[in-house]
Amino acid sequence: MASHVFFNGRIVPEAEARVSVLDRGFLYGDGLFETMRVAHGRVFSWPAHVLRFERGLEILRMRCPFSADSLHASALELIRCCDVSRGLARLSVSRGVGIRGYSARGADHPTVVISVFPSEAGPRAEPLRWRVHVSRQRLLSGQDVSRSKTSSKLVQILARMEAEDAGADEALLLNERGELVEAAGANFFWISDGRVHAPPSDAGALPGVAARTLERVCERLTIPFERASLRPEGLGGVEGAFLTMSSQGVVELGSVDGTPLPRSDKVAKLWRDFEALVEEETKPAR
Amino acid sequence: MASHVFFNGRIVPEAEARVSVLDRGFLYGDGLFETMRVAHGRVFSWPAHVLRFERGLEILRMRCPFSADSLHASALELIRCCDVSRGLARLSVSRGVGIRGYSARGADHPTVVISVFPSEAGPRAEPLRWRVHVSRQRLLSGQDVSRSKTSSKLVQILARMEAEDAGADEALLLNERGELVEAAGANFFWISDGRVHAPPSDAGALPGVAARTLERVCERLTIPFERASLRPEGLGGVEGAFLTMSSQGVVELGSVDGTPLPRSDKVAKLWRDFEALVEEETKPAR
Repeated sequence: MASHVFFNGRIVPEAEARVSVLDRGFLYGDGLFETMRVAHGRVFSWPAHVLRFERGLEILRMRCPFSADSLHASALELIRCCDVSRGLARLSVSRGVGIRGYSARGADHPTVVISVFPSEAGPRAEPLRWRVHVSRQRLLSGQDVSRSKTSSKLVQILARMEAEDAGADEALLLNERGELVEAAGANFFWISDGRVHAPPSDAGALPGVAARTLERVCERLTIPFERASLRPEGLGGVEGAFLTMSSQGVVELGSVDGTPLPRSDKVAKLWRDFEALVEEETKPAR
Repeated sequence: MASHVFFNGRIVPEAEARVSVLDRGFLYGDGLFETMRVAHGRVFSWPAHVLRFERGLEILRMRCPFSADSLHASALELIRCCDVSRGLARLSVSRGVGIRGYSARGADHPTVVISVFPSEAGPRAEPLRWRVHVSRQRLLSGQDVSRSKTSSKLVQILARMEAEDAGADEALLLNERGELVEAAGANFFWISDGRVHAPPSDAGALPGVAARTLERVCERLTIPFERASLRPEGLGGVEGAFLTMSSQGVVELGSVDGTPLPRSDKVAKLWRDFEALVEEETKPAR
């Protein structure tokens, strides 16, 4: 965590960024956020993040008092102020203070926060490989809220806890149909028949910004990309599996509940090209 | 909202009760709460609320730094301090500040808040009758989090918004099996064959404290109580339907999506006896 945050229009020391205990973000998880990669002091995929953020605002019917351009300028100013060249930026908005109860009526002053986190790890030579655990927490397909990155994340938190109990790094979640949907904090992909596969669009996964980057990488590498349904028992037959997330890019799945998954050259290649794309699109022109 | 709140061990003016923007309650809805009826300056059903709260802490693996007795004493002190004879008290705990991301590791200092809200309405002669709307937001049956009153409430908030759009007072939610489960902020019951019915225990409803009070009222009145499955189309055949919630007790359903429901003497009787029980158990001995 860096020393300062953007808080409702001003950059202030982190200790001064405090919200009322009546803020609906704190009361009910009534808000949205974006976690974004910072490289070369810039925000990777800003347009895609802000587009999802704005769609989320529509679903939640919240009005952010700052324009997309002004948020971008503020994020860059904060990144400079905190001297973060590589790391993450988090943009969040909550509905602020309203009347008592779930009704959002009268809550017209959202709380907007941007925070930055310098990267602790150096550059890597190969993708991370994570152990994952199939969680007993479930996701529901076709739900409005799963299209936006909301601040109501207890299912994901409990899934991650279970995974940590099982000695794993991350949890995979199924939907009510028993399909693999996504990880607690990442999108899920697998490789079979030489193609990259992702769960069906209606399975209930968050439309990930890093997942969209991955699709662009597949296009560049002319690796076919398809949507399909996969159950945990189907993981035995895959050529490889991986996650995408803004913070880490591509992370290979090393094992699922203790059963090793094959190491895939394709995953390594996707990881490399994903990182190259981040470099390319954030590196200042000379 | 009263002038003061209990905040991490002290009663402070509401404006001073502020949490870090890094508190996981604010970031992720990572917390729990209870909303409790205050009558005669006492908390109705305190033991049932604190029991559910403690079970929720176990599910979320959080440790509240205050004992149940100490929380009760603090709630009563706050109620006295704010001079609230009738109204509501809200107890909440969030996981506090931890590391970045969903993992709860290292977040060992929960934020504990109690707030009180004086009642604005006077005593009533008959139960409230609400218009309800069947929401397109869905609940998932058999989920761990639905057993506790968590602070991740966006599905309920969106359902309430939809209901308000439809000119209704509250939303009814179905689960993935298409069964009626509960309202956004209340448990759901209906009357048929002279019996009170509630959805199956595994349908996904929060185990409501007011719902438990309702069961006690049914026992007193020797009205049979049963669990059964009901779909929205089955509402046409009921003798009456109602909600229970700590804030209002029993609320009759006047209509569902514009279709009137019959007015039921049984609901009026249940409402009366519910209120009588609140009086009985909070009124100071002379």
